[in-house]
Amino acid sequence: MSVNPPHLKPALAVPGFKVGTASCGIKSPEQKGKRQDVSLIVSDVPCHAAGVFTQNRFRAVCVKLGEATIESYATDIRAIIANSGNANAGTGKFEQQWSEDLINAAANAANVDTNRVLSASTGVIGTPFPIERIQGGMHEAAESLNENHWDAAAHAIRTTDTFAKWSSRKVGDYTITGIAKGSGMIHPNMATMLAFIATDAPIHAKQLAPMLRRVADRSFNCISVDGDTSTNDTLYLLSSGIGLGHTPLEETSEFEQALTELCIELAQLIVRDGEGVSKFVTIEVTGSKNETDARTVGRSIAISPLVKTAFAGSDANWGRILMAIGNAGIDIDTDKVSLKADQVIMLESGNLHPDYRDEDGMAIFAKDEFTLHVDLGLGHASATVWTGDLTHEYIVINAEYRS
Amino acid sequence: MSVNPPHLKPALAVPGFKVGTASCGIKSPEQKGKRQDVSLIVSDVPCHAAGVFTQNRFRAVCVKLGEATIESYATDIRAIIANSGNANAGTGKFEQQWSEDLINAAANAANVDTNRVLSASTGVIGTPFPIERIQGGMHEAAESLNENHWDAAAHAIRTTDTFAKWSSRKVGDYTITGIAKGSGMIHPNMATMLAFIATDAPIHAKQLAPMLRRVADRSFNCISVDGDTSTNDTLYLLSSGIGLGHTPLEETSEFEQALTELCIELAQLIVRDGEGVSKFVTIEVTGSKNETDARTVGRSIAISPLVKTAFAGSDANWGRILMAIGNAGIDIDTDKVSLKADQVIMLESGNLHPDYRDEDGMAIFAKDEFTLHVDLGLGHASATVWTGDLTHEYIVINAEYRS
Repeated sequence: MSVNPPHLKPALAVPGFKVGTASCGIKSPEQKGKRQDVSLIVSDVPCHAAGVFTQNRFRAVCVKLGEATIESYATDIRAIIANSGNANAGTGKFEQQWSEDLINAAANAANVDTNRVLSASTGVIGTPFPIERIQGGMHEAAESLNENHWDAAAHAIRTTDTFAKWSSRKVGDYTITGIAKGSGMIHPNMATMLAFIATDAPIHAKQLAPMLRRVADRSFNCISVDGDTSTNDTLYLLSSGIGLGHTPLEETSEFEQALTELCIELAQLIVRDGEGVSKFVTIEVTGSKNETDARTVGRSIAISPLVKTAFAGSDANWGRILMAIGNAGIDIDTDKVSLKADQVIMLESGNLHPDYRDEDGMAIFAKDEFTLHVDLGLGHASATVWTGDLTHEYIVINAEYRS
Repeated sequence: MSVNPPHLKPALAVPGFKVGTASCGIKSPEQKGKRQDVSLIVSDVPCHAAGVFTQNRFRAVCVKLGEATIESYATDIRAIIANSGNANAGTGKFEQQWSEDLINAAANAANVDTNRVLSASTGVIGTPFPIERIQGGMHEAAESLNENHWDAAAHAIRTTDTFAKWSSRKVGDYTITGIAKGSGMIHPNMATMLAFIATDAPIHAKQLAPMLRRVADRSFNCISVDGDTSTNDTLYLLSSGIGLGHTPLEETSEFEQALTELCIELAQLIVRDGEGVSKFVTIEVTGSKNETDARTVGRSIAISPLVKTAFAGSDANWGRILMAIGNAGIDIDTDKVSLKADQVIMLESGNLHPDYRDEDGMAIFAKDEFTLHVDLGLGHASATVWTGDLTHEYIVINAEYRS
């Protein structure tokens, strides 16, 4: 189940990068050869890099190692190794060795220094990591390295994703290509999924780090499937531009705009492919004192089970939206709140709109895509959040995830 | 659907109190005469009283009025009027008049001063309040006033509740009887449902207020059905004892203990009757620095859709429990966390237990009642939280709530 997944144009190759995949049977040995589950991204030159990581206190070792590697070698990153099928998280003392072994195997296969490799794992938490099977398949990933394999890499990092997610943009002569995975355990509290973005735009790591955080706040941190934040969420951005000999950009706003659009596209793809999602709902919050408050209100609506089941039932039970606004934990003046769904006004400055008819609201909630507009009447800041509904399919998928 | 609802012993009459009900057809006129939807609790004497209210910023007018009435007349409360079928919330300027009209009608019927009456409404938010139908039925509630009608009153405040909830305790010569309703939109962030408790134990309002807050924190604030907090949640406690001429108690700890047990019983009944709930799960968090942190961790587990769907699927996917612990927002040391389900140890001081076998975990998660034990390894405080699972039935109930 997914909501109007768009036909994606082919991902663009990014100068300096090659991508390979392998089928290692990580989730179960029987899947070896049937399903790709390892992605290897290698740069020909040292990359400037930035990362955004999960805020879950149970952080997988790959997240901790990746953060440390970026801290030490942000101007000299050479590869990302990623696997699906097992998160290598929650098993304690074994995790560290397994994660290091994964990085070593990738470094050997790609012929780069071990401490220049970032890793990311996604899948079941709390299950032993089948490192031997991955080591055995790493040469396959290295042999398939090719500048046009971004789509294959996007396929290989999927877990419950029903389609692979990628996006490319051109900014002047430069290219940005990103891949992402995510379908459940999706809630905006940092990256909340895996996404790897490569560009040849020559931007220094010092500029990349704050930029990537701003971009994440307006894209991946604005989506919600179920309000749960994974232990392994990671967003990496690698730039080969300076290593390729380009002069660092002085003006990066055009690049940041394109990167934001690309990340919003990937984030929306994640919502459209959310577990059990049958509707794609945009929540625009305006009239806020600041952007953070607006985003907080949007998120509170986006994660409420009662709101999401009303979406699923095509029931314009908008009192639940007020309930969720009131639960956001920010100061509001209920006499100033207005609410509409597409063009149908329910509440105006705290009062039931005299022309509102339930059948008009129901007609909007019956659509598979619509927009809620909440105006807080307190200021001029705004934010947009994207979410889906909570359906029977979500229960089925998650009650039976491991079987 | 409900989980092992116990057979409740008859509620005990409380000296000084009479209770009446009426059928007003609040949700729809066709239900008049078929379903009781108004409860009236009247005291013969001035009561000392305390209240705990929702923390949702969209507070219904009845909540605001009730808080103001308690503030002004905490030693002289005479009645509670409650209705199901409509929350009288979210409609703006009309709410105030409707709420005052409801209180006036109850005051007239009970022959007490208007400003000595507390009110509570529950049901659909954002729908006009049918005040005329309620006014028309108020004499019926007054005529049925009787000291043994607590069970009828518990029935009349139900919304999606499948059974009525009440509990009584004796403390020495004194009696405590409470009724409650709640099934969805249940999350610990204050009272999170309606509950009205009456006693003839002579306790001053000044003692009642802090006591009721402590008790709520250890009972109603420790349950979760869906993580949503209603606009109308209210807990009232009325004591007729001083008005009946008793000497105020100096030592109230025995009373508080009994009141806590009574409120925990009512709170657990709410979880057992949670919308779509098929399992009753106790979450014990120990080894915390303080009780608040322990409760926060317990709640984070209790509201996670991924944890709750794993419960529903009888899937011991306990990595999701670690995920939820890590999302609680408190400082933890992942190397010190231990986890077991009933007697089956999964994680010990951050490490996968060598004897853990998935089939052992699955056997526990297949039960309709079990206990998760989380030890944070950081201190000596603890808390217990009760929750249910997230099932297909929850979706059905809430997607079709208004139809």
